[in-house]
Amino acid sequence: MYGLMGKIRAQDGQRESLLAHLLEAARLLNDLETCYLYVVSRATDDPEGIWVTEVWRSQADHQASLTHEAIRSLIAVARPLIAGMSDRTEFAPAGGKGLPADR
Amino acid sequence: MYGLMGKIRAQDGQRESLLAHLLEAARLLNDLETCYLYVVSRATDDPEGIWVTEVWRSQADHQASLTHEAIRSLIAVARPLIAGMSDRTEFAPAGGKGLPADR
Repeated sequence: MYGLMGKIRAQDGQRESLLAHLLEAARLLNDLETCYLYVVSRATDDPEGIWVTEVWRSQADHQASLTHEAIRSLIAVARPLIAGMSDRTEFAPAGGKGLPADR
Repeated sequence: MYGLMGKIRAQDGQRESLLAHLLEAARLLNDLETCYLYVVSRATDDPEGIWVTEVWRSQADHQASLTHEAIRSLIAVARPLIAGMSDRTEFAPAGGKGLPADR
């Protein structure tokens, strides 16, 4: 499994709009069985910050998702709302509650 | 919802033992319906690093879990294997794939 967490900072006043786009992305991913987890969160210490936490079957599956047409369209629409990205952390999930192996 | 991510560093050579204890904790949490997510991951850039990613119904539910006897016992057993903790990030999950509202 491949895990990824990162912070996206919205342009001033745009966090809720950006959040809506990311939740729409999560709905698209519901149909993609290689995506195990895609959680969209408000940062508690930054009024424009959003954390995205992802777990995929593999890093290659994550890469492949970025080429899907519906996801590319969504990225294109959301991009103008983004001021910056930071704090990217990759990790290798071993298991736990909420992943397919434990369901 | 309440989210939490943090890094636990194992004593030298103890990552796999510590990981096993944390996966045991995740199994205990399977029965706790206030815990939505508890993912245990190996750090990819630190041979002793473990990331734990948690989502709970509320911060109070997370706090309450730390008083459960089985979890306290597990923490007591795991503590000698821990060299340090860092990179604690709290966040407020809004939704996404893999959380109860979307199942």
